[in-house]
Amino acid sequence: MSQPTYVIGHQQPDTDTICSALAYARLKQAQGERVVPARAGELNPETQFVLDQWDCDSPTLLTDASGERLILVDHNEYSQTVEGARNAEIAEIIDHHRIGDVMTSNPIRFRNEPVGSTATILTELFDDADEPLSEDTAGLLLSGLLSDTVVLRSPTTTDTDRAVAKRLASVADVDYEAYGKRLLQQKSKLGEKAPRELVLGDFKEYEIGTHHVGIGQVETVEPAVALDRRDAVLEAMDELVVERTYDLLLVLITDLLEEQSELLVAGDQTRGLSTAFDIEIHERTATLPGVLSRKKQVVPPLETALDSPA
Amino acid sequence: MSQPTYVIGHQQPDTDTICSALAYARLKQAQGERVVPARAGELNPETQFVLDQWDCDSPTLLTDASGERLILVDHNEYSQTVEGARNAEIAEIIDHHRIGDVMTSNPIRFRNEPVGSTATILTELFDDADEPLSEDTAGLLLSGLLSDTVVLRSPTTTDTDRAVAKRLASVADVDYEAYGKRLLQQKSKLGEKAPRELVLGDFKEYEIGTHHVGIGQVETVEPAVALDRRDAVLEAMDELVVERTYDLLLVLITDLLEEQSELLVAGDQTRGLSTAFDIEIHERTATLPGVLSRKKQVVPPLETALDSPA
Repeated sequence: MSQPTYVIGHQQPDTDTICSALAYARLKQAQGERVVPARAGELNPETQFVLDQWDCDSPTLLTDASGERLILVDHNEYSQTVEGARNAEIAEIIDHHRIGDVMTSNPIRFRNEPVGSTATILTELFDDADEPLSEDTAGLLLSGLLSDTVVLRSPTTTDTDRAVAKRLASVADVDYEAYGKRLLQQKSKLGEKAPRELVLGDFKEYEIGTHHVGIGQVETVEPAVALDRRDAVLEAMDELVVERTYDLLLVLITDLLEEQSELLVAGDQTRGLSTAFDIEIHERTATLPGVLSRKKQVVPPLETALDSPA
Repeated sequence: MSQPTYVIGHQQPDTDTICSALAYARLKQAQGERVVPARAGELNPETQFVLDQWDCDSPTLLTDASGERLILVDHNEYSQTVEGARNAEIAEIIDHHRIGDVMTSNPIRFRNEPVGSTATILTELFDDADEPLSEDTAGLLLSGLLSDTVVLRSPTTTDTDRAVAKRLASVADVDYEAYGKRLLQQKSKLGEKAPRELVLGDFKEYEIGTHHVGIGQVETVEPAVALDRRDAVLEAMDELVVERTYDLLLVLITDLLEEQSELLVAGDQTRGLSTAFDIEIHERTATLPGVLSRKKQVVPPLETALDSPA
């Protein structure tokens, strides 16, 4: 029997990454391919809620991808992918982020679109393949889309996302506003988390110029639960800077209702941050009005800041 | 007035690169965007024939892209792109090659598919956008497709290419076999070329591991016209190795009718070539039976050869 191909999203998996892996595996299986949905880490409570809701098993946990054949969804940078991916064959990429550092020997499918979720692109791939969407596959894709776009509120949301969300909601037979609110509530269960878990819950690493950067994001409707423990969170961040040798470590506490983020800062490379974001940093904290998206509103100005001469 | 975006293909432009730039600019213009088709070098005789055939102006010659906004078609590696592209904004990529070294700060459209031509993907983009194909746009796209797939004979040809070719031929109102033969004849006008022109006519550079590699390809129905001047061609290759510091320089003289290539070799990094291609190299020449595609049949084994330990 031939080796299977794993469809896998990024480390610290979120709902879009998990639901995209599940849905793309279903599409490939429907086309007769031997494809297994996988994940690179533990499920968060929101994603667990979604899998329960749509009666779906968790993807296989892959801890080392060396020697495997992989389809990457929802990321395209080695610093964000499963352990061992540099020694794996990358067979396809479906994503909606900046273009990263994956190179291949052979031509492959790489479909990256500047839309609000990978689930949006996957819905189009079902259409391209003339493959009908079942109620529960539509439910999974809708969950990924609503989670990544903060129920169509994030500035990453496009007209395509809005049209696809309506269609998926109709197939899945749910009211997407009401369902979206239930997702946001799951996202907000922060009270019981340790500061280190808060920082690493939704966390991504980037190589920007010569700098090793980490950015965590806590999306919540109750930011006070995190901000009341600001000093403990900063302490956890300082520990991580030493352990993982970050030049810069940022945490965004994103208030989904007020549509703004509190920025917490650790590491040596803080020069240029004030200019890049046009903010004043006071006691390693600043407010970023209107900022909901790490990808679109934090990473690009950061690249400018870290590239500028000393 | 806002800055235009240039749609541009690779250096040493071929028919697929030029026709893809022209067609995608037309699609974007139909959608109200300010987009200008461009090229990174001189047209070859086949491409000039195609533009005359479909009564189309040559794209603008762009000699320095610094500071510009670019859509890359038919390539996605800096070593193959227009001068200055590293200091340009890459706004989109449409291609059918291996994944290269372009990285971006923002999410962009990157549509790479393992099909026979970029023109094939562009035809799908017209469909996705519900934009009708005019007779002459279909003619340009058909030319790119037939040229890159050697009239659907190259091993890079997929079922998608075959289906798209039939459709384009019907819209352009031509017999694609007969039209394809006329294209191949244009490709074969080698007699009047100097050895250096033969090597550089359809030429690509690659960074493979730490090695700087150049690969030229001469596609012809009369290989003798090139092979009779083998010593002069090898001499031109040796000069280029010194001038441009190649570790390895290959030229493929591809016989389109016999469906095989003669390989000519220059540079220091020839170790591993025999094993990689399972051939014997005699007087810097070897026969590669069945080899028509640089991308699919030469670059991947070369990566294995150059990566293997000494």
